[in-house]
Amino acid sequence: MPHRIVHMLRARGSARRPVMLAIAGDSAAGKTTLTRGLVQCLGADRMTAVCVDDYHRYDRAERRDKPFTALHPDCNHIDIMEQHLQLLSMGEPILKPVYDHSTGELVRPELVEPRDFVIVEGLLPLHTRLARACFDITVYLDPPETLRHQWKIQRDCAKRGYTPEQVRAELARREPESAAYIRPQRRWADIVVRFAPVAGRADPPDTPLSAELLLRPTIDHPELRGVLDDAEHRAMHLKLHRDTDGRPVDALHVHGYVSPEECQVVKKAIWERLGTGTTLPGSLGRLADGADSDPLAITQLLLLYHLLDANRRQAA
Amino acid sequence: MPHRIVHMLRARGSARRPVMLAIAGDSAAGKTTLTRGLVQCLGADRMTAVCVDDYHRYDRAERRDKPFTALHPDCNHIDIMEQHLQLLSMGEPILKPVYDHSTGELVRPELVEPRDFVIVEGLLPLHTRLARACFDITVYLDPPETLRHQWKIQRDCAKRGYTPEQVRAELARREPESAAYIRPQRRWADIVVRFAPVAGRADPPDTPLSAELLLRPTIDHPELRGVLDDAEHRAMHLKLHRDTDGRPVDALHVHGYVSPEECQVVKKAIWERLGTGTTLPGSLGRLADGADSDPLAITQLLLLYHLLDANRRQAA
Repeated sequence: MPHRIVHMLRARGSARRPVMLAIAGDSAAGKTTLTRGLVQCLGADRMTAVCVDDYHRYDRAERRDKPFTALHPDCNHIDIMEQHLQLLSMGEPILKPVYDHSTGELVRPELVEPRDFVIVEGLLPLHTRLARACFDITVYLDPPETLRHQWKIQRDCAKRGYTPEQVRAELARREPESAAYIRPQRRWADIVVRFAPVAGRADPPDTPLSAELLLRPTIDHPELRGVLDDAEHRAMHLKLHRDTDGRPVDALHVHGYVSPEECQVVKKAIWERLGTGTTLPGSLGRLADGADSDPLAITQLLLLYHLLDANRRQAA
Repeated sequence: MPHRIVHMLRARGSARRPVMLAIAGDSAAGKTTLTRGLVQCLGADRMTAVCVDDYHRYDRAERRDKPFTALHPDCNHIDIMEQHLQLLSMGEPILKPVYDHSTGELVRPELVEPRDFVIVEGLLPLHTRLARACFDITVYLDPPETLRHQWKIQRDCAKRGYTPEQVRAELARREPESAAYIRPQRRWADIVVRFAPVAGRADPPDTPLSAELLLRPTIDHPELRGVLDDAEHRAMHLKLHRDTDGRPVDALHVHGYVSPEECQVVKKAIWERLGTGTTLPGSLGRLADGADSDPLAITQLLLLYHLLDANRRQAA
């Protein structure tokens, strides 16, 4: 019945095609914090953010009888997630399911219309080949597990009404599925982001976490060698090394104690590589608690570079 | 970004393609009664029935402030309905929205996986060109308005808790939108079905309604001229005439007082044209109140012929 497909394509006409960015990572890895600054920077009229954790197949009560946690692909409508990612990537609207985290119920779905940019964040956006095919840029958030556990306890107790013991038990229950389904997605990321304290340093307690950004040669990163060098002694440096799987990568290190001056040099260097002729955007680097972080700001700026670059190449 | 589409198509592989039948018609036109017999006949393992009235954009409370009724295309996610029809027609599952008629609320969506046959019934399945492109067979239910009003009053008072006055007021409020959006779909049907009493006859009160089936030459109908002729005096006859828009059509008339013997001849004739070598299926012609109707049975059998014929041609 290929005629039917032809009929449909002819009737549909042409569609806008948004730039698609995936931010994958385990629960409380910092996905929302990273996403928020990008949406604020580009504006909700140009950017749509979608959380794919809404594709739960079962509500909280139904999950009690199941032999897996919410992390397991079988606990999610992965085929529908794939379908919706394809549709969004072709500029089509979707009627997205909605999971209410406060009640644990699946409720009325909502219409999502893709703008110029779509950020898709969640636990499993890079789980399947078809889902990965929908993205222009892929990111995996990879904080040390001890730090992530701490963040999850803080958030789930403050916002979702759990006790620390309950969250720790849940983390233990989820660990085999994290290892089996979440962490393997790191392999598919163009950029792996790790926020962590620098080992062996005694910085003041309000020093932001450092960022280590693995820049894989799967997409074209801005040329930074003219600005940075491999010298370990600087607060920010670019270093060629081998990833855990042996593949060559550039690693951009941004230490938490980086000075505003040094930070500004790098921000400007990234921004100027884009050649927009506009000034560097503000509202980057804001943490969930309201504090500012230059390592976060530079991470977001790099993603912004990729978003705008992909958008520009598409329009060309 | 055509590469992205190629990626997706390659990653998706091939899919089953179900036969798609649309049954359009106004509220209480008899869509569910017609559908039910077909599903019972083919079995729920081979046939999926979808009601597109679930694609309401607003719930009952939200509609109160709106200048239109639930019949208006603007009151429905027509673009999502089109998208879901395309997906089903290509053998893909959908996460279908659900409107709860008893409470008037939009609730948790449900997974629908297309089987060999998909029946799509509702108010607006033939409203747009793209939606129509998804179907192999299209039907419009066209009872006389007086009869439909009577059916709607009976049903809405018995099952949805309204008074006859409320239903009459709603019918009056809906009339301009019925004329503007529902009835124009008649034009796009391969088969127009009209159940009505025969004018000028005094049949016993339990005589079933007669059926008039306009068979448009937009699809290949079974050859019935060898069995039926144009003679007006028979309880069942086939007659060439002009539709209200001037287009030529065959009209198959099945009078309510048709004898079981005459009915059986026609049923067998339709079924044998299919050449399955199997016996005529039962469970056709059952009305909502439990009574049987031979005109309904023949209508359903004709649709069954088209469903199986399309399925066979697809497999060839």
